[in-house]
Amino acid sequence: MTPEQRDAGIIACSAGNHAQGVALSASKMGAKSVVCMPDGAPISKVEATRRLGAQVSLVPGAYDDAYNYALELQKETGATFIHPFNDELVIAGQGTIGLEILDQLPDLDAVIIPVGGGGLLAGVAFAVKNLCPSVKVYGVQAENAPSMLRSFEDNKIRTLDSVSTFADGIAVKTPGDLTFEMAKNYADDIITVSEDEIAAAILALIEQQKLIAEGAGAVSVAAAMFSKKIDLTGKKVVCIVSGGNIDVNILSRVITRGLVTGGRNSVLQIALEDKPGQLVGVSQIISNCGANVVSVHHERSDANMAISSCFLKIGMETRDFEQINLIKQELTKAGFKIMTDRIQEMA
Amino acid sequence: MTPEQRDAGIIACSAGNHAQGVALSASKMGAKSVVCMPDGAPISKVEATRRLGAQVSLVPGAYDDAYNYALELQKETGATFIHPFNDELVIAGQGTIGLEILDQLPDLDAVIIPVGGGGLLAGVAFAVKNLCPSVKVYGVQAENAPSMLRSFEDNKIRTLDSVSTFADGIAVKTPGDLTFEMAKNYADDIITVSEDEIAAAILALIEQQKLIAEGAGAVSVAAAMFSKKIDLTGKKVVCIVSGGNIDVNILSRVITRGLVTGGRNSVLQIALEDKPGQLVGVSQIISNCGANVVSVHHERSDANMAISSCFLKIGMETRDFEQINLIKQELTKAGFKIMTDRIQEMA
Repeated sequence: MTPEQRDAGIIACSAGNHAQGVALSASKMGAKSVVCMPDGAPISKVEATRRLGAQVSLVPGAYDDAYNYALELQKETGATFIHPFNDELVIAGQGTIGLEILDQLPDLDAVIIPVGGGGLLAGVAFAVKNLCPSVKVYGVQAENAPSMLRSFEDNKIRTLDSVSTFADGIAVKTPGDLTFEMAKNYADDIITVSEDEIAAAILALIEQQKLIAEGAGAVSVAAAMFSKKIDLTGKKVVCIVSGGNIDVNILSRVITRGLVTGGRNSVLQIALEDKPGQLVGVSQIISNCGANVVSVHHERSDANMAISSCFLKIGMETRDFEQINLIKQELTKAGFKIMTDRIQEMA
Repeated sequence: MTPEQRDAGIIACSAGNHAQGVALSASKMGAKSVVCMPDGAPISKVEATRRLGAQVSLVPGAYDDAYNYALELQKETGATFIHPFNDELVIAGQGTIGLEILDQLPDLDAVIIPVGGGGLLAGVAFAVKNLCPSVKVYGVQAENAPSMLRSFEDNKIRTLDSVSTFADGIAVKTPGDLTFEMAKNYADDIITVSEDEIAAAILALIEQQKLIAEGAGAVSVAAAMFSKKIDLTGKKVVCIVSGGNIDVNILSRVITRGLVTGGRNSVLQIALEDKPGQLVGVSQIISNCGANVVSVHHERSDANMAISSCFLKIGMETRDFEQINLIKQELTKAGFKIMTDRIQEMA
């Protein structure tokens, strides 16, 4: 950049890592930077970008709205715009990840790559396919934000009406024309994963790798764990985990969800006679089975209940579904009537 | 080991990483291993130890009970017992961490080390103090399991009556005689940290390092963040994070606790007139302030309330304490009476 360009500053838009990359680079070269982000971006991403020296402008809507606002702002200020994915240099930079992978694991069979606008996919696919054409390259999107998949299927760039995924870093309505062309030429397929699969992948990374990934970063692992579209049996596979800026509120929900779907947390609803000592009986059985009561809700005013009855809703930390079934059996054996064993909904 | 010793197998006891280390080593050399663990050990630790090939025996009580049981078992079976900390070779192995630290960061000022039985502290302190006497070496214990600290203070080995900390990997009632002697000779001080400080350290590692640590592993970071006993200002400090086998149920509680103490989650209790439309008013104000309602509990039968009144308990995801205060101000301005803004208790 010329001194004049540097003085005019840098502008960018981003739902993901680009924000922090731009902020850091601009600070290092002594230029001002403005980064436009969707207003639903996790606080951790916004704060990290600010800490690295950028002015953050929160734009109502999705990534694509932040993009349009950044373009307007660019016209007003004359700052240099750096596109988060549809930019040859950005794609080339991301392609170096492909070089590193081939360097460290020359005999890999496949690489799985998160896709929002498609920059990471374009760069890595280009590098890998040029050097090792036999390696399979898969892109992954959230099934609620499948812009690259739709574009692949229709063989032209498609814009989604809306995107809705907790993998905010890849919630992009329209792929870039450059990234679409390169993905079409170099990637083997685009896979999608569900919100629950993404949550399970985040939990697996926590428990097995001691690693925090955000939704957008974990879709690659989710694809490896759950996708029926690809067969990875016995294969050497690299999953690129491309981001860890998850809001802890979201993380807390992901863990809760994972605990429930894994039988580690459950809620039983029991019909009781409305007389003293009933709670003692129920809690004794749960305790004997080795589970831990974490919440109790006692409800007498449900219109569907007989006057002499009441509901007991009891939340427990459990080991697995086997233990939950044991508790249910023992309660039934003791004469308690289990109304539902509701899977606790994600808050 | 001789072929006869190998055939007789290996026995160990552990609250922490030793379990998995023994299981792996035994499997590699084709020997059977039995590992005695306290029955409150996280499922993740037990499962990981089993996966690595050991038979796990869960012993009721704390680490020290598992230790005593392992000694009995050893007499019966004649297996080789490998002590988790009070063993010269184990200490020497852990000392290599000190060598690695000096290798990678020769100009460090201090190293902070989690302490259960004291093996890690003894090994690292010995290595570091012999090669770089100017480097400060601190051990850290949970304040509810301060066996090494008590022994330091009384200058002789002390046994605690009980230990109670969610940092299960360092919940040890008695330090070893070998580790106590070495710690006394080579460590500068023993620090303790509270349960809340350990939780805050785990959350900081998650948010800032994308790293999952268990309580026992994070006490070193907790000491660096909170201890007033040591001054680390401007110093180069290494915190050894010595374990990541945290149960996700515990992790979920740690995050919840961290969210509440950081103003990211809060519960307001509001007195309402018992008439229609009141919930609309409250939720409108909360929504206008940009917070997210996550739970609502409406209570009419509290004995302390006037007949025409009721309680509303409303849980919210918030940005920070500033936002919580804004919500309280706006509610008060609109005529709602806030009874308590209770900090949500750790479940």
